[in-house]
Amino acid sequence: MSARRSASASGAELLLDEIREQPAAWRRLLEREEEIAELGGRLAAADPVLVRIAAHGTSDHAAAYAMYALRLLCGWTAMRDSMSLPLSYGAAAAAPGELAIGLSQSGETPDVVAWLEAARAAGATAVAVTNADEGSSLARAADGVVSLSAGPERSIAATKTYTCTLAALALLGAHAAGGERGTALAASLRETADLAESALPALEAAVLPVADVLAGTERLYSIARGLELATAAEVALKLTEVAYLCAKALTATSMAHGPVAALDRAFPVWAVAADDDTLAGVREAVRRARDAGAPVIATGPAAAALEGAAFTLPTPAAPDPLLSPLLSVLPGQLFARALALAKGIDPGAPRHLRKVTLAA
Amino acid sequence: MSARRSASASGAELLLDEIREQPAAWRRLLEREEEIAELGGRLAAADPVLVRIAAHGTSDHAAAYAMYALRLLCGWTAMRDSMSLPLSYGAAAAAPGELAIGLSQSGETPDVVAWLEAARAAGATAVAVTNADEGSSLARAADGVVSLSAGPERSIAATKTYTCTLAALALLGAHAAGGERGTALAASLRETADLAESALPALEAAVLPVADVLAGTERLYSIARGLELATAAEVALKLTEVAYLCAKALTATSMAHGPVAALDRAFPVWAVAADDDTLAGVREAVRRARDAGAPVIATGPAAAALEGAAFTLPTPAAPDPLLSPLLSVLPGQLFARALALAKGIDPGAPRHLRKVTLAA
Repeated sequence: MSARRSASASGAELLLDEIREQPAAWRRLLEREEEIAELGGRLAAADPVLVRIAAHGTSDHAAAYAMYALRLLCGWTAMRDSMSLPLSYGAAAAAPGELAIGLSQSGETPDVVAWLEAARAAGATAVAVTNADEGSSLARAADGVVSLSAGPERSIAATKTYTCTLAALALLGAHAAGGERGTALAASLRETADLAESALPALEAAVLPVADVLAGTERLYSIARGLELATAAEVALKLTEVAYLCAKALTATSMAHGPVAALDRAFPVWAVAADDDTLAGVREAVRRARDAGAPVIATGPAAAALEGAAFTLPTPAAPDPLLSPLLSVLPGQLFARALALAKGIDPGAPRHLRKVTLAA
Repeated sequence: MSARRSASASGAELLLDEIREQPAAWRRLLEREEEIAELGGRLAAADPVLVRIAAHGTSDHAAAYAMYALRLLCGWTAMRDSMSLPLSYGAAAAAPGELAIGLSQSGETPDVVAWLEAARAAGATAVAVTNADEGSSLARAADGVVSLSAGPERSIAATKTYTCTLAALALLGAHAAGGERGTALAASLRETADLAESALPALEAAVLPVADVLAGTERLYSIARGLELATAAEVALKLTEVAYLCAKALTATSMAHGPVAALDRAFPVWAVAADDDTLAGVREAVRRARDAGAPVIATGPAAAALEGAAFTLPTPAAPDPLLSPLLSVLPGQLFARALALAKGIDPGAPRHLRKVTLAA
C-alpha cells in the first residue's frame, strides 16, 4: 500500500489510461464473439427457467444490468441472488433447469466461487464471467466461461472490467436470443466503441470545472431508473472508493420516499437520464432535488431533458439502447477521478483497499 | 408542510410513540392470524415456481427480508423485481404459476399498483400487503390481501408499518410452510413483542449518549449480511430521512470492495450482527472499518461479538431467528430520532416529503 500511496501522480494517470482504454477493450472482447455465441447458443438450447446471478461491488452492478438486459433480450427472468442463503443458511443454491452466473473480475472472490459451485452441484448450468484466465477458481467451477479480455486492470477502482462485463453479458444474451440479434448487437458494440472514443476527450475536459466547483462535496445521491440503475450504482461506488464521498445510488422514485429530505446545497444529485419511458420519473426526481436546493449534475443520453441542472454532461445515444450504460458511466468514472484530484486524493490507490476481496 | 414544520416538539413525540407502539401493532396483526393462515394455505396449494416482489423505500427493505424469509420458510425463490421492466420496457411482468407480491403501506403507490395489475394479468397470483383497507387500489388489484393492522402512521418516517410488514410476511410464509410452523411462528412473534416491550426503555436511553457524541455526523454506512441486510437498509433510510445523513447500506463483504476507502474518524459504521454463520463476515468488516479509523456502533443480537466497537447497542435474541430483524431495527429507529434531535432537526416531519409517494 505504501508503494502505491507514494506513486500518486502515476496512480491518477493509470486510472485515466484504463478509462481511456475501454473502447479498445470492448473491441478485444468482440474478437471472442464466436466463443460467446457458442455459449449463448448452448444456454438458449437449455432454455433456463430462471437466471441467478451472484457478485459483489462493481460486478454486482453488472448483475443489476443483466437483470434488465437478459430479460429484454431473451425473456429470461434474472435475479441478483443471495450468496448467504446457501452458504450461511443451508438453503438450496439453485435447481435443475436454472442458469447460475458468477461474476468476479479476479475469478477468485471466495464466496462467489463457493456459491457457483453450490449452484452447479444443485443442478444449475454454471457460467463464470471473469477477467481471469480459464485456470481461475471461478472458471473451474463453471460449465461455461466468458473471458472478458479486458487486460490487466492495475487501478484498484474497476472501470474497464465493469464495462467489459456489461458488454459480455449483452453479447451473451443477444446470441442466446438467436436469429440476427447477436451479430446486430456485436455491430452496435463496435459502433459504441467508436462513439466512446470520440466522446471521451470532451468528457475529460467537461468534468474538470464540475469537480472544481464541487470539490467540497462529501455526500451525493446518484439516481436513475431501469437499465441505467446499474450506472447510478457504479458511479456512486466510483465516487466512494476514489473520491471518498458517501455516495448513495437510489431509484429516482425511491429518492422521493424519504432520502430527498437530506438534500441541501452541499449535497448534489447525479442524475442519469435515458431517452425512454423511464425519463419522466427521473425528471420528476430532479425537479424535487432542485426544489430541495441540491445542485444537479445531469448525465446520460437524455441529460438535456433534465431541466434546471447545474451541470450537464450528456453522453451519445448508443445505436442499441441496451448498450447505453457503457457510455453513460464514462462521465461518472472521469468525474470520480477529477473530484479526487480536486480534493487532493490519489485516485489510483484508494486507502484501506486491496484488489481481490477475500471473503467473509 | 408548514403546519408540520411548526409542530416540532410534537413531531418528535409522535415518532417516538409510533416506535413504542410496535409490539402492540404486532399483537394486533396476530389477531388476523386466521386470515393470513388461510391465504398462506391457498398460496402453498398453488406452489409458486417463483415469487416476484415489488416495492419502494421502506417496503423494498421488507421485500429484501422476504427474499430470505420465504426461501427459508417455504423453499420459495423470491426476488425483488423491477417494476420498470413491464411498465417502461414492455417486458412480461410475470408468468402463470408465479406469485406476485406488491408492498405499499398506503396501498396507493401508483407503480406498485400498476405492476401488480400487470403481474396478475400475466397469470400470476397477486397478493397485496398494505396498511390500507380492502378498498385501496393495491388491494383491488390483488387475489389476496394481507392487512397490516398497524393503525394510522402519522410520522412520515415509517416504523411500525415496516416491522408489521416483516411480521406479516413471516407469518404468511410460516403458514404456507404448513404443519405447525405457522402457529409456532405466531407464538414466537408474541414472545418477540414481549421482548421488544422490555427492551425499548433501555434502548431509548442508550441511544442518547451515542447521538450526542455523533451529532456532527453527515456520512454513515450500515452493514450486515443475510437476513439482517433489510435492517441495515432500513436503518440507513431512517438516518437519511429523519436525521439528514447520507447513510448507505452495504453488505459487509461489499464494504471491503471499495467503500472502506472513504471511511475516516467522522464517518461511522453501524453494524448489525446476527448470531449465525454470517457473523464472521460482519466481524471482519468491522475490523477493517476500525483499522480505517471509523467509529463502529455494534447492534443486533451478536453486538457483543464485534470487537473494538465505540458503542454497543445489543438487542435481545428473538425466540425464532427469522424474527430477529423486528428487534434489531429498534435501536436504529431510536437512534435516527435521537440524532435528529441532537442536530436540531424535527424528526417527525422531514423536509421536502409527503407521505404517499406518487409515481414516476
